[in-house]
Amino acid sequence: MSIPSRLLMGPGPSNAPPSVLTAMSRPLVGHLDPAFVALMEDIKAMLRQVFLTSNEMTFPVSGTGSAGMEFCLVNLIEPGDEVIVGVNGVFGQRMAEVASRCGAKVTTVEATWGSIIEPDAIAAALKQVARPKLVAIVHAETSTGALTPVEEIGRLTRDSGALLVLDTVTSLGGCAVRLDDWLVDAAYSGTQKCLSCPPGLSPVSFGPRAMEAVRARRHRVQSWYLDVSLLANYWAEGQRVYHHTAPISMNYALHEALRLLLEEGLEQRWARHERNHNALRAGLTALGLEIVSQRGHQLWQLNAVGVPQGVDEAAVRGRLLQEFNIEVGAGLGPMKGKIWRVGLMGHTSTLENVCVLLMALGRILREAGQSVDERAAAAAAKASAAGS
Amino acid sequence: MSIPSRLLMGPGPSNAPPSVLTAMSRPLVGHLDPAFVALMEDIKAMLRQVFLTSNEMTFPVSGTGSAGMEFCLVNLIEPGDEVIVGVNGVFGQRMAEVASRCGAKVTTVEATWGSIIEPDAIAAALKQVARPKLVAIVHAETSTGALTPVEEIGRLTRDSGALLVLDTVTSLGGCAVRLDDWLVDAAYSGTQKCLSCPPGLSPVSFGPRAMEAVRARRHRVQSWYLDVSLLANYWAEGQRVYHHTAPISMNYALHEALRLLLEEGLEQRWARHERNHNALRAGLTALGLEIVSQRGHQLWQLNAVGVPQGVDEAAVRGRLLQEFNIEVGAGLGPMKGKIWRVGLMGHTSTLENVCVLLMALGRILREAGQSVDERAAAAAAKASAAGS
Repeated sequence: MSIPSRLLMGPGPSNAPPSVLTAMSRPLVGHLDPAFVALMEDIKAMLRQVFLTSNEMTFPVSGTGSAGMEFCLVNLIEPGDEVIVGVNGVFGQRMAEVASRCGAKVTTVEATWGSIIEPDAIAAALKQVARPKLVAIVHAETSTGALTPVEEIGRLTRDSGALLVLDTVTSLGGCAVRLDDWLVDAAYSGTQKCLSCPPGLSPVSFGPRAMEAVRARRHRVQSWYLDVSLLANYWAEGQRVYHHTAPISMNYALHEALRLLLEEGLEQRWARHERNHNALRAGLTALGLEIVSQRGHQLWQLNAVGVPQGVDEAAVRGRLLQEFNIEVGAGLGPMKGKIWRVGLMGHTSTLENVCVLLMALGRILREAGQSVDERAAAAAAKASAAGS
Repeated sequence: MSIPSRLLMGPGPSNAPPSVLTAMSRPLVGHLDPAFVALMEDIKAMLRQVFLTSNEMTFPVSGTGSAGMEFCLVNLIEPGDEVIVGVNGVFGQRMAEVASRCGAKVTTVEATWGSIIEPDAIAAALKQVARPKLVAIVHAETSTGALTPVEEIGRLTRDSGALLVLDTVTSLGGCAVRLDDWLVDAAYSGTQKCLSCPPGLSPVSFGPRAMEAVRARRHRVQSWYLDVSLLANYWAEGQRVYHHTAPISMNYALHEALRLLLEEGLEQRWARHERNHNALRAGLTALGLEIVSQRGHQLWQLNAVGVPQGVDEAAVRGRLLQEFNIEVGAGLGPMKGKIWRVGLMGHTSTLENVCVLLMALGRILREAGQSVDERAAAAAAKASAAGS
C-alpha cells in the first residue's frame, strides 16, 4: 500500500491532525463495552456543543455525509409529503433527489450556482405549496463556495409550521452553525471537512419537532439502517439495544477531533478560518485571480477560484497534485472546467498552507505562459464591465 | 479517551492485527486521488479472491454489515416483489424486515433458532410462492452459531429462476464461502468478524443476474446512498464519478486485512478456525459445558455455549469483562440468558486465546460454586434423556 503525503486543499477530506489519525490505531473494544458507551456519551455531548444545540438526539450516523442527508430525509418524509428544497448547487440537487426517492412531492427553489438561496424565495414557495412538511437547504454549498444565511429562513419556516432541515456538511466547525438559535429542526454534517476527521461518519441532530414528526408517522421508515427510532435505542442514554455494530475506530477519531475543536474554541476556530480565507483572497488578487461565488456570501473554508481565460483547469490541478502534492478540487456541473475549489478546512486552514498553494499556483500559471499583469488587466476589465 | 485492551471473543468486532490498526494512521488522501483509486482496485481484486467470485461488482459499501444487507435488498427488490427469507435467528428476521420495508411480499421459511434452514423447506416455499424474485438466507447465523449449507439451496433457487442473496457477515474469512460455485447472485459481509478489520465497511458482491435485475427495474432504488448503479460509477474501473466521499482510512484497514488474509491463505485460515473451534469444544467438554447449536452444523468462529442450570449468565459475562478483559456475547431473542456467544474470529482465533478463556471461565464457574462434576453429571443426564 503506497500512500503519498498530500496537502488536502480540495472540497474534503481535509488533512487530519496526527492525534486524530493515531486515535484510530487504539485497540478495538466491543460496541456495547462500557468504555465505548462512555465514549458515545462524550461524543454526543461534544457534538451538541459544536452544533450549538440542546437536542438529545445528536449523534454520528454510521456512514458518510450523504448517509446523514438520507437519514434526515428518510425519517421525516412520508410518501406524498410536500417538501421545499433550495437548489443552488450539487448538494441541493442531491437533497431534492433523495427527498423524491422518499416519495415526497418536491418543490425546488432554484438559485444560480454560486449564489445563495434568498429568504424571499423560500417565503414565496411556502405560500405556493399547500401543506409544506419541510424546507431543506444547504448551509455551505461545497460545489460553489456560497454560504446561505439561515436565520431568516429559520423564522419563515417555523412560522409556516414546516420543519427546517439544514445541510451543515462543510459549515460545521468552519463558521457559525447555531441550530437552536436558527430554529433548525434537523441537521447533518460530515467528519472530513472542518472537523478534520477522516470520512466515515455523519454527525446528525434531531430536535423535538423532528422527533415529534417521527412519532406521528403513519408509514415505517423505508430504511432500516437509518431508522432514527431504532438508532435511538442504541445511542440514547440508558438503553443500548444492539442495532448495528458501530464503527468503533472512526468514533475514536471523531472523539479526538471534537476534543481538539473544543480545545481551540468554536469562535477562535471560525476566526482562524476567516483569517486564512482573507489571506488566500489577498494572495489570489495579487496573482490576478478571483473568487467567483456571490460577494458577501463567500465561504471561508471552500473557495471557488475562477480559472483564467486560456488556462487548462485540469492540467493545472494535475500539476498541483503531481509536482506539489497539493490536492484542489474541480468544478462540478455547470462549473466544471471554470473553477478550482480550494479548501481551507479545519486542520488544513493555516497561513503556511495558503502560502504554499499560492506559490505553487503562481509558478504553474507563470510557466503556462500567463503573466500576472495579463490576468490582472483582464480581471480589471471584467470588473469595470460589471460595474458599468 | 480511556480505552482498555480487551480480548474480543464475542460476536464481533474481533481483535484486529496491529498492522491493520496502524494502517488507519496513514495520512489521508482524497477519494479521487490516483493513489486511492489504485487502492480501490486492489481491494476489489482481493475481495473477489476472498469471496471466490469473478463478479466485477465486488467492493465495500460505506457502512457496516447491516448497510450491506440493505444494499443487497434495496437494489434487488421492487414494490410488490415476492421474496423468500430463511429465518433461523436475528439476522434472518432482520432480512425479512428490511425486505418488507422495500415493499416486498415476504414469505419466511422458519427454523428453530440454533438449527439450519433445510433445502427442502426452501424447495417447498419456492413451489408455494407464485413468482419468487429472490431467496435470502444467512450463511452463518451470528445469533445462534448455526451454519446453513448453501450449495443445494443455490441449485434450487437457480432452477426456480429466482436470485439468491447470501448473508456472509460472519462466515467470510472463517470458513468456506464460494459465491460462484454455489450460484449466489448477491452477497454481503462485514469487516469486523473473520476479516479482523474494524467495523465500518461492508464488502458486497453482485453477480451478472443481480445486475441484470437492477437494469430491469421499473422503479428507482429507494436509497440514493446505496444505489448500486450510482456506486458503480465510482467503484467501477475507469469511471470514478464522485458519488459520496469514501471512508479513506477504513479502506486502508481493509486493504491490509485482506492482504494478511491472502498471505495466510484461504484454506489455511479456514483450517485454523476449525482447529481452534475443536480445541474450544474439547475444553468446554472438560468443563462440563456444551455448544448448543445443531450438531454437524456448528460454526467454528461463533460458538453458542449453553449456560448451566443455576448460573447467572450476565454475571459470568460481566466478570469475564471486568476481571479478565475478555468480551463474550450474550444470547439474543429466545436465547437471551441461555447462551454465551464465544467468537473465535480471524485474528482472535488462536489456541492461546482458547486457553485463556477456558481458564477464566473455569475459575469463575468454580467460584460460583458449581463443580465440574455437577455440570458433567447434568450434561450426561441431559444427553441420556435426549438419546432415549
